[in-house]
Amino acid sequence: MQEIKEYLEQHKQRFIDELIDLLKIPSVSADSAFSQDVLDTADAVKTALETAGCDAVEICETAGYPIVYAEKIIDPNLPTVLVYGHYDVQPPDPTDLWNSPPFEPVIKPTELHPEGAIFARGASDDKGQMYMHIKAVEFMIKTGQLPCNVKFMIEGEEEVGSKNLATYVSEHHEKLANDIILISDTGMIANDVPSITTGLRGLSYVEVEVTGPNRDLHSGLYGGAVANPINILAKMIASLHDENNHITIPGFYDRVEELSEEERAEMAKAPFDLEAYKNSLGIEAVYGEKGYSTNERNSIRPTLDVNGIWGGYTGEGAKTVIASKAYAKISMRLVPHQDWQEITELFKTHFERIAPQGVRVKVTPHHGGQGYVTPIDTIGYQAASKAYETTFGKKPVPQRGGGSIPIVALFEQELKSKTILMGFGLDSNAIHSPNEHFAVWNYLKGIETIPYFYQYFSEMYS
Amino acid sequence: MQEIKEYLEQHKQRFIDELIDLLKIPSVSADSAFSQDVLDTADAVKTALETAGCDAVEICETAGYPIVYAEKIIDPNLPTVLVYGHYDVQPPDPTDLWNSPPFEPVIKPTELHPEGAIFARGASDDKGQMYMHIKAVEFMIKTGQLPCNVKFMIEGEEEVGSKNLATYVSEHHEKLANDIILISDTGMIANDVPSITTGLRGLSYVEVEVTGPNRDLHSGLYGGAVANPINILAKMIASLHDENNHITIPGFYDRVEELSEEERAEMAKAPFDLEAYKNSLGIEAVYGEKGYSTNERNSIRPTLDVNGIWGGYTGEGAKTVIASKAYAKISMRLVPHQDWQEITELFKTHFERIAPQGVRVKVTPHHGGQGYVTPIDTIGYQAASKAYETTFGKKPVPQRGGGSIPIVALFEQELKSKTILMGFGLDSNAIHSPNEHFAVWNYLKGIETIPYFYQYFSEMYS
Repeated sequence: MQEIKEYLEQHKQRFIDELIDLLKIPSVSADSAFSQDVLDTADAVKTALETAGCDAVEICETAGYPIVYAEKIIDPNLPTVLVYGHYDVQPPDPTDLWNSPPFEPVIKPTELHPEGAIFARGASDDKGQMYMHIKAVEFMIKTGQLPCNVKFMIEGEEEVGSKNLATYVSEHHEKLANDIILISDTGMIANDVPSITTGLRGLSYVEVEVTGPNRDLHSGLYGGAVANPINILAKMIASLHDENNHITIPGFYDRVEELSEEERAEMAKAPFDLEAYKNSLGIEAVYGEKGYSTNERNSIRPTLDVNGIWGGYTGEGAKTVIASKAYAKISMRLVPHQDWQEITELFKTHFERIAPQGVRVKVTPHHGGQGYVTPIDTIGYQAASKAYETTFGKKPVPQRGGGSIPIVALFEQELKSKTILMGFGLDSNAIHSPNEHFAVWNYLKGIETIPYFYQYFSEMYS
Repeated sequence: MQEIKEYLEQHKQRFIDELIDLLKIPSVSADSAFSQDVLDTADAVKTALETAGCDAVEICETAGYPIVYAEKIIDPNLPTVLVYGHYDVQPPDPTDLWNSPPFEPVIKPTELHPEGAIFARGASDDKGQMYMHIKAVEFMIKTGQLPCNVKFMIEGEEEVGSKNLATYVSEHHEKLANDIILISDTGMIANDVPSITTGLRGLSYVEVEVTGPNRDLHSGLYGGAVANPINILAKMIASLHDENNHITIPGFYDRVEELSEEERAEMAKAPFDLEAYKNSLGIEAVYGEKGYSTNERNSIRPTLDVNGIWGGYTGEGAKTVIASKAYAKISMRLVPHQDWQEITELFKTHFERIAPQGVRVKVTPHHGGQGYVTPIDTIGYQAASKAYETTFGKKPVPQRGGGSIPIVALFEQELKSKTILMGFGLDSNAIHSPNEHFAVWNYLKGIETIPYFYQYFSEMYS
């Protein structure tokens, strides 16, 4: 498959331009103000799949944003790869921290990527990584080298919990039937340390509301005499971790998989520079659960983070008010075997229980998903490993990731197939943050590597 | 002074209309978007003082919003009353909880005020109460019954800490020379339980900023491994009270005046219905410092309340982010002898000290002021008491208030005179809250009562 390099050389400017066009559409699924843009993005993805040479391309309506489906069936006797990705993106807030507008993509060199990176919301998560697959398939179809069947399922609600994908998947077992699922929505350790994500954390995301008095009050007249919902919310949140940063929700750790000393020792071999990590984040010290390393804390251990908090007067100047209500968005990252629905229930029960008299508490589950672990002795993993080795010149490291793609566990349950997470992003890509970017080198390296996965997987499968 | 009742009957519609016009101008001093409106309000107050018959009316420029000064000197040998009030108002947020727009005043009956109350931001605090004085003086001037000299000093920065009034006062000792200061910016226990506020709490208002990583992070990739500024802020706020709701800042209580058992027993005689209090606030239980009653908690005890908190994603839906920064506005109500600048310093030192490694903390003092206690054996208090007794038919109860008018302590220090707090509002007026209002009855009762204060004070003084 030598000509992939030539094909890339010939078409790379077009590949970049096409991605930039896609990044210009603000497909923010969490904010209904952008709903038309999300729909326009689905149309753009449909067109891109048609142009790449796919058949049966369709916009599949759901109760929310549509799923774009496409396929290229060359022989029912050959194996089938199902590619999953998402065309929606995270909200760009806080927009004032972006160095260029989030939906006006620009290519700029960075210290890590002197050859340039594309800066835009969704550049890495997941428009850029999803689009690599469309371009890789374009190459295989146009050059007559597609060695197996391929199906695409690109959704528009990943950033809001894949609300309607589960229904779609459960209703289309036959249409989506496959031998392996391929996703690029994760990262690698570094460009010279390729890695494959073998585990993902689950997620439970809830919103809490604490109500005290039935109206905002003057803090002079009522201060000290009634429960202040913000003080109470702070106290309740603080109590969710103990002095060792263990989570205090009863039953939270009951199903947590404890790794053996051998497994932890194996994990500890992955290259990690704590000083560089702290420097890149501008922090003097890391912080987390006692008894675990930084890499363990953000991969094999469950966590609880407040993702947003608000209440009272937050404008300019001062207002001496006791707010009637205070709110927080709280997410818990879960590890394999923790059930997200059970954890959501445990959280709700506990949070309601610890509310003092004088306030009322409402817990609203937003969404969630199970964690996932993929074994490395499957042909899916082996094919991916060999593909990276071919194009990076190095065997990739298996790595447990801290993020969540809740749908992966569901795929296995519904479609009975394993997922391979071939990520080409880096932690430094600032996904979910201002100045998200994706290096041009990584984008093109992804397009180059993916066809080898198809080749090796088809060879090993037969 | 029988004709005050007649004068009121004759002019009450005009008095109401004039106040409504004043309430239409959104003089929100905390928000620079309203700066022209604040200036327009100063002009309106100037015109009102001129119309009432005052002399030497002027707009006195300061580094911030101007002070409106006026006087009526009838005889240098007679005593002089200095009236203080403010024409700026609190921000109206949250505006969606108002039943009518905050700057479109309407008169509506309420359960407590079947004869109607004026609903608007500033109706009670302090435009309505300040305007009573202008109308009372109008009556005394127009009917030739002003028994002493009067000076007005109406400022536009009370709701943002009277930033520039201190300078003005210190530079105009002679101009502002007086024998008693009169302020209506507090409340009474009830319309059938008139009371005079004899103490006010001091205030220290600060803003805190907690910074963790140098950018917003993806909670999947970093969750559990770095200090989350919102979780940390919650923990730090929670730690500011112990399990008995005592404030934990070292030295905070050192200067707190402890009342004797006799004084507390005397205070406890004031009529107070805990069930009605809880019902009016929609709460099942009161909450506060162990060992003190509700009335003690919000008058003779210092407090610490979070007035606003914000950080991370607060929009629609979910975003799995670890914010770089979290913020809170925190105010402490202080009791006499606590020095607000010392308390601010104690807070700052403590808050910085308790920040864990991995975050940086910035504490910005907003403003503050000293508490105040006025003795009841002065002719000022006695004149006010007799005035209420004349128009309410009942001797008023001396009452310690929970709010703060920081400038009162400064007046005593700079001008060497005592302040009498003749408030005609009620706690239920929802000042600083949505649906602030001031009953028409109370507004007119204030105008009726004030001239008697001038009469009795002048008589007792000679």
